[in-house]
Amino acid sequence: MSELYAVRRTQLRDRCAATGSTAALISRPANVRYLTGCAPPGAALLLGPGDDVLVCGRPLTGDPTEGRPSDDVRVSVLPTRGGDPVVTAAGLAAKAGAQALAVEEHHLTVTRHRALSQITPRMRLADLACAVEAQRLVKDDDEIACLRIAAEISDQALGELLESILVGRTERHLALELERRLVDHGADGPAFPTSVATGPNSGRAGHLPTDRRVEEGDFLTVGLGANYRGYRCEIGRTFVIGTTPADWQIDLYDLVFAAQKAGREALAPGVECHEVDRTTRQILERAGHGEGLGPWTGHGVGLEIDEDPQLSPGAMGKLDACVPVTVEPGVHIPGRGGVRIDDTLVVRPEADGGPELLTITTKELLAL
Amino acid sequence: MSELYAVRRTQLRDRCAATGSTAALISRPANVRYLTGCAPPGAALLLGPGDDVLVCGRPLTGDPTEGRPSDDVRVSVLPTRGGDPVVTAAGLAAKAGAQALAVEEHHLTVTRHRALSQITPRMRLADLACAVEAQRLVKDDDEIACLRIAAEISDQALGELLESILVGRTERHLALELERRLVDHGADGPAFPTSVATGPNSGRAGHLPTDRRVEEGDFLTVGLGANYRGYRCEIGRTFVIGTTPADWQIDLYDLVFAAQKAGREALAPGVECHEVDRTTRQILERAGHGEGLGPWTGHGVGLEIDEDPQLSPGAMGKLDACVPVTVEPGVHIPGRGGVRIDDTLVVRPEADGGPELLTITTKELLAL
Repeated sequence: MSELYAVRRTQLRDRCAATGSTAALISRPANVRYLTGCAPPGAALLLGPGDDVLVCGRPLTGDPTEGRPSDDVRVSVLPTRGGDPVVTAAGLAAKAGAQALAVEEHHLTVTRHRALSQITPRMRLADLACAVEAQRLVKDDDEIACLRIAAEISDQALGELLESILVGRTERHLALELERRLVDHGADGPAFPTSVATGPNSGRAGHLPTDRRVEEGDFLTVGLGANYRGYRCEIGRTFVIGTTPADWQIDLYDLVFAAQKAGREALAPGVECHEVDRTTRQILERAGHGEGLGPWTGHGVGLEIDEDPQLSPGAMGKLDACVPVTVEPGVHIPGRGGVRIDDTLVVRPEADGGPELLTITTKELLAL
Repeated sequence: MSELYAVRRTQLRDRCAATGSTAALISRPANVRYLTGCAPPGAALLLGPGDDVLVCGRPLTGDPTEGRPSDDVRVSVLPTRGGDPVVTAAGLAAKAGAQALAVEEHHLTVTRHRALSQITPRMRLADLACAVEAQRLVKDDDEIACLRIAAEISDQALGELLESILVGRTERHLALELERRLVDHGADGPAFPTSVATGPNSGRAGHLPTDRRVEEGDFLTVGLGANYRGYRCEIGRTFVIGTTPADWQIDLYDLVFAAQKAGREALAPGVECHEVDRTTRQILERAGHGEGLGPWTGHGVGLEIDEDPQLSPGAMGKLDACVPVTVEPGVHIPGRGGVRIDDTLVVRPEADGGPELLTITTKELLAL
């Protein structure tokens, strides 16, 4: 594994050198983890000109949520009485003779950036921009393996919930139970706050659980995902509580299902991201549900739950093979509720069988 | 309640006017909530020169975790296809004729700050710095009432755990159970990730739960807190599993208890923050446990779990009445474990009975 991280850092170093920076300072946690295997809170990674150094505010714990650093990265722990790892790392770069240091301007605050300029007045600060995010876009086999396990765990947790009695329980309790089950099955934790939405709340994107209890006849929308070794996936399903879904429920479900299916089937290397969004979105728009749609109908996943590419009307760029994305259209009718269906898939060429579905829980409209 | 938020905003406006800014843009979520009663993710608050406007990226939900906005704040929801609330709010300020806009440079990234400059080239951007954080330092009665409820919930959750069987259960499960109990008792959620540390992990600050199981003879350190209407408190206790604590356990416990007690008793209006830290710290240092101590021995709590003041060797400033803080020394002996004891208290003058202890679970060394 160490070699893998070294290759990633070499690629980044080459990219920096091409833009005239002799050193780079990475502070965004997911980027630090991608390049070292480890991301203690607040840590900063200095790449070249000397050793690669991971500057940490406290000793490493070795917890799976934090990861373990690659052997070829020197770990430097600040003394107890503190300081800012980012500022310390910049100081090391200056001492090692760096003329220009590329920093993540989309992550550093104005105040911290100013602190860097002040302690290293002779070193030019440049913008690394989203260079690491760009490198993270296409996943390697190990990364996809982690996502596959994360999806498997999510399916298991959801499957067990479906076997339990739901009527009368609150959204909050169901969400907590799902998170416990994720951990039971080996997750390092939930990938994002678990969403459980019943009745009039159902179908709302990212709904945070309330004390509302599940009632007969409700739509129940669940959104969850496991974090496995830092990799995060997402699954969302909608069910009906009680035995006979109402006609409007069946119609709405079929509509969202059709939109989600069309989006999934549109995933292929070389396809424009906004085209996938359009495919999904237009089915809902034509049925008169365009207004309440979110700004995107899917997004990349990996070390963050919401990363590039975005499947949205304004998205630039095309899909690549080995890019994991969600497809997650939803409709919410105020006062009534709605439907969301969400899968994590990996974009694959048709020769390899087309998009690989990671979250395999059934998408039939189940009455629970 | 509306009036309360209006008063807070007027104070801030006056402070801005004094520094030459005719408008302020608040983006740090806890600050937005403090000034409006509500903080949807990513929202930005524009103060003057016209109306006060809360710009949101999506419709409000009314969930307790998000809060509800004060009536006298105009809520503006961006169209579905997006944009950045911060940039939109800055545009509104420019349109309303603001000459200078004070922004939170310690919260805005360099990239976002640049985007603001670009869309409003004629408006000067100034630094609001930590003006809102400074206002938040001393709490009013309503805020302390929320903290009191948060503490009560935390005590209840912890108390129930102590009555259950612990041997053989993993740190992760105990942490999840505590979080469930917090919600059962009315918390909007945990105030921070619950820490459960057993055996060699015990006593480590902010330890994230692992799959280690509780064993007879272990120290068990638990750190948890409820979030109630946005207000977060903290409690930490250490127990022994089995009937007879070993001598080293009793000695270490007594030492940390003495340090924590001294720190609690040092809390009073007008006392230097570093003085409270020194009182706690020197007891542990004299016993030879100075090395492993964290950078602080306590900190303020409120809408964030870790806010000003900091009780640390380098802290500037004095305590005020009605400032809630934690006192939480701990010792961790690598390979063996350790002890942490953590309370949330409100600083009060001696005439009012001295520091008010919010977290009242016993601090005797219990053998569970």
